[in-house]
Amino acid sequence: MLVFVLNAGSSSLKYQLINAETSELKASGIVERIGIDGVLKHVISENKKLTIEAYIPSHKEAIELILETLTHDETKTINSIDEIQAVGHRVAHGGEYFKESTLVTDKVIKKIEELIPLAPLHNPANILGMKICMELMPNVPNVAVFDTAFHQTMPEIHFLFPVPHEDYTEHHLRKYGFHGTSHNYVSKEAIKLLNNKKDSKIIVCHLGNGSSICAVRDGKSINTTMGLTPLGGLMMGTRSGDIDPGIIPYLMDKKGMDTHQIIDYLNKKSGILGVSGISSDLREIIGAANDGDQRAQVTIDMMCNRVKKYICSYSGLLGGADAICFTAGIGENSDLIREKVCENLDFMGIELDKEKNQIRTHGNREINKPTSKTKIFVIPTNEELVIARDTYNLVK
Amino acid sequence: MLVFVLNAGSSSLKYQLINAETSELKASGIVERIGIDGVLKHVISENKKLTIEAYIPSHKEAIELILETLTHDETKTINSIDEIQAVGHRVAHGGEYFKESTLVTDKVIKKIEELIPLAPLHNPANILGMKICMELMPNVPNVAVFDTAFHQTMPEIHFLFPVPHEDYTEHHLRKYGFHGTSHNYVSKEAIKLLNNKKDSKIIVCHLGNGSSICAVRDGKSINTTMGLTPLGGLMMGTRSGDIDPGIIPYLMDKKGMDTHQIIDYLNKKSGILGVSGISSDLREIIGAANDGDQRAQVTIDMMCNRVKKYICSYSGLLGGADAICFTAGIGENSDLIREKVCENLDFMGIELDKEKNQIRTHGNREINKPTSKTKIFVIPTNEELVIARDTYNLVK
Repeated sequence: MLVFVLNAGSSSLKYQLINAETSELKASGIVERIGIDGVLKHVISENKKLTIEAYIPSHKEAIELILETLTHDETKTINSIDEIQAVGHRVAHGGEYFKESTLVTDKVIKKIEELIPLAPLHNPANILGMKICMELMPNVPNVAVFDTAFHQTMPEIHFLFPVPHEDYTEHHLRKYGFHGTSHNYVSKEAIKLLNNKKDSKIIVCHLGNGSSICAVRDGKSINTTMGLTPLGGLMMGTRSGDIDPGIIPYLMDKKGMDTHQIIDYLNKKSGILGVSGISSDLREIIGAANDGDQRAQVTIDMMCNRVKKYICSYSGLLGGADAICFTAGIGENSDLIREKVCENLDFMGIELDKEKNQIRTHGNREINKPTSKTKIFVIPTNEELVIARDTYNLVK
Repeated sequence: MLVFVLNAGSSSLKYQLINAETSELKASGIVERIGIDGVLKHVISENKKLTIEAYIPSHKEAIELILETLTHDETKTINSIDEIQAVGHRVAHGGEYFKESTLVTDKVIKKIEELIPLAPLHNPANILGMKICMELMPNVPNVAVFDTAFHQTMPEIHFLFPVPHEDYTEHHLRKYGFHGTSHNYVSKEAIKLLNNKKDSKIIVCHLGNGSSICAVRDGKSINTTMGLTPLGGLMMGTRSGDIDPGIIPYLMDKKGMDTHQIIDYLNKKSGILGVSGISSDLREIIGAANDGDQRAQVTIDMMCNRVKKYICSYSGLLGGADAICFTAGIGENSDLIREKVCENLDFMGIELDKEKNQIRTHGNREINKPTSKTKIFVIPTNEELVIARDTYNLVK
């Protein structure tokens, strides 16, 4: 079954066309700068890429352009859009209502609309993506796959914030967590690598521009670092992560900003970008540190220490982990970060093999020493594949 | 040398009279509700206590009343205030300027005044205490002992927040940490218990109504949980601790509060009080949990999990700890909390002896199993003694 996987943002659209039964990726791409100018980057294979620059006024024109490209690219990925048998949508926030993926109906769209206050930037774009697909491909079923759903198994002691209880019961203030599709995929791959160990205890470090860590017990999320919003938890590319809330009025006073400006500042100007003063891209920071930039080195150390601290915290919650998994842009590609994160954790049974860590290969790999009680894996994430499979399972 | 130790708050004054050379406590007490009505509770010994209820309009009258009581109580603790040879003041915030205790001079007071924006509730009361003592005992030297000073050894990678670097360089936004005098005292006691081990690695859990944890390497603080303000870090009696900052605008919107009201809410209505809906006093929560109150149990589990997580984090930063120390009201007195915090940490060499943990004795004690790689100590804190000793060392 050919599934069109769509991740709709406020001014961008990512997509993949996947055969959900064979896991074959037929094509992928991204449309950026919708409503500003517009560019489509379409990838048929590693050697066949296509870039179309054109004014793309809205998400509808963007999806039309993607569908046209799929049927008209030089390899004719598909002959007709009728070959698309289902659409899987990544949806940012499913609140407490959506604990798993679901077929999109009018009622489902209404519920996702109700959750907009919890994800004001993302849910509206996700809904728009659904409505456009329903209009352009009226006979094709749509499935919503929620970034929060995997974390709905968290117990109360981990999802409640230390604030008055009525903020949860009346205002739904709780930890939701994000990157659920990735944590789900990676932890399931890890369980396979552990020979389907019973009651497995796994820590997934999804380290990209946005980052989160998840403690997974017996295949279920029991805690994760992001909170009510994706600003919580780790220091990220441009986000601060959890902080002493006393900082906010202090910064408001010193900088003459209002609360919303400060939150924007903590979302977009902080983290790796803010501390380094260079970039949100860790590769640039590592380059600068290699050239002797002191603040770049401090940035790397701060980021790695925070990952290390959460790995240790979650190891404690789990009573020792069977496996630690690194995934996403930084997690999969930066041996330096993995090495610094795992440094000096021998005392708790975490022993990285520095040589194995430096070998770059595709696919899942084990990078711990044979003596390490905890396995250390690099597992490339594949959120789109999970979306395609969930979609297939709901529409087959 | 008799040292009068003073901890001046906005509407209360705590004091002790200590012989700094022998560590003998001569008397102690507290004046509360200054400017409201007023009560002095004066303790000469465990069996001799005195309570004076009288309208106490200001801090000056309060200190006059204390000094009068010291010279006129039934045992005549001192015959004349001339016997007081020095005054040691607890000062909340020494910023980056005060890295150790110091003799109070006009210049020092001016500096502490400059730091008021970092501790708007506490530093003004501390200054007032100094000025009154200088007026009432003009020939007696005063020493300022800062709650932040012990943490001034933290390295940059641990004291910087993940926000733009200029917020530190221009606005002094950084982690300062508090309870420094307690962490200092307890870690030094622990080092003695470790037979003055070189390069010792110690974690101090100061768990009271306000709580913080400190990682101490070779006698020096390298990281602590409180941040710019005492609102950071752990969940406390009424404080939330670190949170996803995205919560703040969400709560403002839902509750119709402004930022300062929300910060006040996170300071005074959250933590143990907020989650339980019962009290900020953990003893009451434990009682309610024993009576079957489900939310009280959740509150205890949340609080213990957060302590456990920081112990594991700091163990990771230290590469394994030689000792974990419990101190302050909860840390010294609650075997239940110590047991829950240490549960399931055998994998990292932390093994509590449950029976030893339940024995209640005075003084320092070891409560780990003989096989535990990490020692677990209960060490009653004594901030006043540190203040008296620092004062003695500066004026002798």
